[in-house]
Amino acid sequence: MFSAAGCMEQDIAGCADFDVEIIKKGIVMEKKTPIPKGFRFATAEAAIKKPGRKDLALILSDTDAVMAGMFTKNAVKAAPVRLDMERIMSGKGRAIVINSGNANACTGVQGLKDAEETAKIVGAALSVAEKAVYVCSTGVIGMPMPMSRLRPKLPELAAAAGNALFDDVAAAIMTTDTFPKILSIRKKIGGKPVTITGICKGAGMIAPNMATMLGFIITDAAIGTAALKKALNAAVKTSFNRITIDGDTSTNDTVLIMANGFAGNAPIQAATADYAVFAAAVAKLCYELAMLIVQDGEGATKLVEVVVQNARTEADAEKAAFAIANSMLVKTAIYGNDANWGRLICATGYSGIAVDDSKVDISLNGLMVCKNGMATGRDVEANDRLKSKKVVILINLKLGKGAAKVLTCDLTEDYIKINAEYRS
Amino acid sequence: MFSAAGCMEQDIAGCADFDVEIIKKGIVMEKKTPIPKGFRFATAEAAIKKPGRKDLALILSDTDAVMAGMFTKNAVKAAPVRLDMERIMSGKGRAIVINSGNANACTGVQGLKDAEETAKIVGAALSVAEKAVYVCSTGVIGMPMPMSRLRPKLPELAAAAGNALFDDVAAAIMTTDTFPKILSIRKKIGGKPVTITGICKGAGMIAPNMATMLGFIITDAAIGTAALKKALNAAVKTSFNRITIDGDTSTNDTVLIMANGFAGNAPIQAATADYAVFAAAVAKLCYELAMLIVQDGEGATKLVEVVVQNARTEADAEKAAFAIANSMLVKTAIYGNDANWGRLICATGYSGIAVDDSKVDISLNGLMVCKNGMATGRDVEANDRLKSKKVVILINLKLGKGAAKVLTCDLTEDYIKINAEYRS
Repeated sequence: MFSAAGCMEQDIAGCADFDVEIIKKGIVMEKKTPIPKGFRFATAEAAIKKPGRKDLALILSDTDAVMAGMFTKNAVKAAPVRLDMERIMSGKGRAIVINSGNANACTGVQGLKDAEETAKIVGAALSVAEKAVYVCSTGVIGMPMPMSRLRPKLPELAAAAGNALFDDVAAAIMTTDTFPKILSIRKKIGGKPVTITGICKGAGMIAPNMATMLGFIITDAAIGTAALKKALNAAVKTSFNRITIDGDTSTNDTVLIMANGFAGNAPIQAATADYAVFAAAVAKLCYELAMLIVQDGEGATKLVEVVVQNARTEADAEKAAFAIANSMLVKTAIYGNDANWGRLICATGYSGIAVDDSKVDISLNGLMVCKNGMATGRDVEANDRLKSKKVVILINLKLGKGAAKVLTCDLTEDYIKINAEYRS
Repeated sequence: MFSAAGCMEQDIAGCADFDVEIIKKGIVMEKKTPIPKGFRFATAEAAIKKPGRKDLALILSDTDAVMAGMFTKNAVKAAPVRLDMERIMSGKGRAIVINSGNANACTGVQGLKDAEETAKIVGAALSVAEKAVYVCSTGVIGMPMPMSRLRPKLPELAAAAGNALFDDVAAAIMTTDTFPKILSIRKKIGGKPVTITGICKGAGMIAPNMATMLGFIITDAAIGTAALKKALNAAVKTSFNRITIDGDTSTNDTVLIMANGFAGNAPIQAATADYAVFAAAVAKLCYELAMLIVQDGEGATKLVEVVVQNARTEADAEKAAFAIANSMLVKTAIYGNDANWGRLICATGYSGIAVDDSKVDISLNGLMVCKNGMATGRDVEANDRLKSKKVVILINLKLGKGAAKVLTCDLTEDYIKINAEYRS
């Protein structure tokens, strides 16, 4: 489904073939989010950054779950990321403890001890092996974890398992997000109804290579470790790894998936029909979650899809799409409804890929503004087309067959305000 | 002077040894800018973008000058850039015609014809070989040059040579710049007083690889072609190639240097004492011009120097410094007087270089906020230090001896306003 050509509109439409049901919470509160069987949740208030909100959450599987994870490529990795990267080697787990308000990054040896202690306390309270507990953090970098406030709340959190919704977890992990992000897909696999539900938080410090700060996907599917890992990697490639808000890759980016087998299907193995259905669903879920992150980009007023087609290779297409999506000049022009395609061809040109500008076509929301590297004279009309909540930028390089799509948002005064005042 | 370790404060101070006199116009109007002998200037109004300002300028040497140039590395090159890259092969020239208001980029075959015609008309009017005339343009990309308005003004421009100051040329080439940028250095070479004067324009679409949109340096020194080229390349490496406003590399970036020999010194050849003096002066001039560009960054309120020390290599240091200087999160934090060093170590981490975060020290305006990758607890004090027009970010990686300094500015709501409305 997510082919080498990237995730195009027709692919998404194609999902209907699989009887996919997607419920977007936070966007349209249609109904209660379907949750896979055998999972419980809890939230608590630990006043990690400041009091007054739930900033601690627990995801618990009733039995050992098969797990896979992907982590930031930033050379500076937060303590919980280092902990989880170690634990994910087992391919298994029972619980995830998540806090917002403090990233536990750049906190040295003590930071790692704090993450370990967090897992240990929760594990003990749940009567679960310490190493089956994963820890994720998001928030300010470089502050010690306030363990004196966190420590006493952890047993309470464990004891409360089942008292909260997955929706509440989605809300508790928010930082500058303006709405919780939760999506669910249901489908039949091996004759059994399987539910896959995911949450994530984003907003800022979002860029290629694990663009989401934190994402958690839970499913009751029965699946082998290798197949789960493969499905997650493929899904992330064209979703969380193809979005950018501001070009900054965080120290804490983590996506974890837990599959506990409660659906009772015959365990899914790689390269089977069941795998194809499952992998497509996970990919679809990740793509839609990534879309939610971009829609909620800090200060954003518009969702922008940058599609580069007919590059020499897919890698070239991705590089150009990211150069455009990260260009402040492009993002401000879109904010200003200015069909300034010169900035688009300029960013394509400096992206480092092969470009023959005498071949480049550029369309904005379906209107061609540049043909063979020159103006079509339809800029005024195009300005009008940009007065839309969604902007599709299409760049046709006519050099090969590589294509990629990157999601981003516009850049506004509010991004500046949010980030100039984030810690105060 | 500009060693492998980059341009540090002590290097600049060292310039005093050479009896350098720098006069900054637009910052402090101290006196009339010294101009090398044997150059004349003209400006005219051609209403290229809109009427009401001088948007056309001429730099003319009274005899054939030795010339060198550096051009944008963007794969999409404006027509005048392609023209000048061809002509600079001769190592000679007489005149430069510059317009603002239209970049003549992405204008196809006609764009190149327009640039050629511009040079031809001016050459004929000056009785100078067509190929000795260079053309530079800056402004909006993708609009055909309004030759019907430009054409009749070109003979007038040529006829007016000598009626304007170099300062007027600096003003005519401005786009979103808020002040003209002109600097001059005088020194004795081979017993003769030599003057080197430069102008440039910047403001937006400023990034590594020929960061200035346009820069013109004129000197009455006598110098060989190879020596001039070498001096320019070395100077640009640590000046115009080490600044960034918004990470966007333009289609039109050009720096040209003309040396007409009117000073009467024995021609400077590479690897001589005279060369060292001359090259140091050009480097100093370019560095100070680059500083002016950053100080005038679109919407900027602060000049930011990012110094990365003790990286594995100079290339690593440069990479990290640019990642920091281009980070929107860093730039907004500085705007907000927020000593959020987590964003600095994060950008260092994702820059792609070798980093051991347990070794990283970070200082802001001389105050250490992060030692060995952890907080020193002096953030509040550091916030106060940031309330300054100049911010020096010092990152010590303790991995080797590579160092680099990149100049940038903060990111403010005004950048968004300027660029959301640039074409309207």
